Amino acid sequence: MSKTDDPDVLRRLYEGWSQRMAANPEMGMDDMRSMFDEWHQATAEPDGVRYAEDEVGGVPGIWAVPDGADESKVVLYTHGGGFAVGSAASHRKFAGHLAKALGTRAFVVDYRRSPEAPFPAQLDDSVAVFRALVSEHGIKPENITTSGDSAGGNLAISIPLRLRDDGDELPGAVIAFSPWLDMEHTGATLDSNSATDALVQKPILEGMSTMFVGEGNDAARTNPLANPLYADFSGYPRMWVDAGTHETLQDNAEKVHEKATADGADSTLNLVDGQQHVFVFMAGKAKVADDELAAIAKWHKK
Amino acid sequence: MSKTDDPDVLRRLYEGWSQRMAANPEMGMDDMRSMFDEWHQATAEPDGVRYAEDEVGGVPGIWAVPDGADESKVVLYTHGGGFAVGSAASHRKFAGHLAKALGTRAFVVDYRRSPEAPFPAQLDDSVAVFRALVSEHGIKPENITTSGDSAGGNLAISIPLRLRDDGDELPGAVIAFSPWLDMEHTGATLDSNSATDALVQKPILEGMSTMFVGEGNDAARTNPLANPLYADFSGYPRMWVDAGTHETLQDNAEKVHEKATADGADSTLNLVDGQQHVFVFMAGKAKVADDELAAIAKWHKK
Repeated sequence: MSKTDDPDVLRRLYEGWSQRMAANPEMGMDDMRSMFDEWHQATAEPDGVRYAEDEVGGVPGIWAVPDGADESKVVLYTHGGGFAVGSAASHRKFAGHLAKALGTRAFVVDYRRSPEAPFPAQLDDSVAVFRALVSEHGIKPENITTSGDSAGGNLAISIPLRLRDDGDELPGAVIAFSPWLDMEHTGATLDSNSATDALVQKPILEGMSTMFVGEGNDAARTNPLANPLYADFSGYPRMWVDAGTHETLQDNAEKVHEKATADGADSTLNLVDGQQHVFVFMAGKAKVADDELAAIAKWHKK
Repeated sequence: MSKTDDPDVLRRLYEGWSQRMAANPEMGMDDMRSMFDEWHQATAEPDGVRYAEDEVGGVPGIWAVPDGADESKVVLYTHGGGFAVGSAASHRKFAGHLAKALGTRAFVVDYRRSPEAPFPAQLDDSVAVFRALVSEHGIKPENITTSGDSAGGNLAISIPLRLRDDGDELPGAVIAFSPWLDMEHTGATLDSNSATDALVQKPILEGMSTMFVGEGNDAARTNPLANPLYADFSGYPRMWVDAGTHETLQDNAEKVHEKATADGADSTLNLVDGQQHVFVFMAGKAKVADDELAAIAKWHKK
């Protein structure tokens, strides 16, 4: 839990990044990745968590292992960053908080990033991790929770869709924080929340989605595995999805919840007033993030 | 210990940074700090270490607590980065490796950085941590080891000098990795090793030292507490100092060892063939780094 309550720490971080991008419109991918790796600064070091680098299914990543974690259960965590930036390192601390809240271990996946590796490389890597957790680590599929934020929330939602299409057993639950799903940039909150979102604006998303789908592959923008707003959620695991009401991506969360619910899935939507993109990053620093993790833990136990 | 041996990982990281700085000579301090925070990429996550954010003596930092650490002993770790960049976050993993090797805890200090805070702010903060470890945490001075790399190696060496000048009890040992001491940039290896050092070149050092001493304070360049090559090492704790022979700062290590030895202190110098600046960063990734930590642990136990 937070020792102090600093609910503006994430907004300040985002405002700093936005100023830097505005001052340097030609910022290269290396500098962009360095900057976004500062995401961890919004999160406190969680107490009582050990870390270990590993490869699972041939994909590198970092284990976060809280004291007393149930070793039979795993959170497969896919980091955000528009499929291009962010890393297991930038999300290590948050994964530690999430794993602690759920009483499990977490493996944060360093999937291949775009533009070097476009869709479906990220999903391929994440699914490979899921399958190796089952086949090599002996974890029961229903004891795996897929979770991620932003573009990683997209992956957390897409992994079960892909597994279902391939006839594999599914994870027990899905937790998506401020997922980015709309690869066509048609959402109404993209405009209506533009003034309150300190980071995520249409030009950034357009750049990221173009790198993600890859040259000459605009068809991927409506592929259900790249854009789960087009997916059929029949037989889908139970899902928690959240977003802040100051987010341009707010309606991505709303729409996936509505679609999943219409398809008969057990989906829970939590829109949190006045929050920025992936507000849970403030775990250990702001009550609103700790409260969200506590609510998710309660839901997850059921 | 390393699972694989990748002794070039640090050189590759430095070459990438050098290319980015050459391509962007006007790189701002924010981007510079983001880039240098990638220092952690050279280091593997050490197994069996927990972390906690804290303030000691009013100075923020991160505890690295290895399993089974002797709680009565502490490494006070001051990170490198020319007094201007680097952080407790960038050095967390390395401090974990060092603490594991020595069987102690480590506190990595987030001292105030230049240019916002020039000399002696960094030393003031580090000394405040030392005193609070003694007075508030009940650690005996002789059970504290000051350690740091590059500019942080300067601080690790200066803390006991300042304590001695103030009549305080001294730490039990000092470990300085590739310390940067020469604030006048007069060392011969600055030129003779220029071709082999992948990162540290005179123009960078000149920029960093100018920010460190502060406007109109060039006298600090020969102040023994900013430039310990001018210090008297009488009554000094035992010291380990190392450097790589591909470093422009190689002779900083040699000179401080010679001066300390001449003043009657117990100093050990280890020059490692063909290594880059702070090669120990490769702990868990390269045998040469793990071997250095093992040698230091053996020396430290005596």
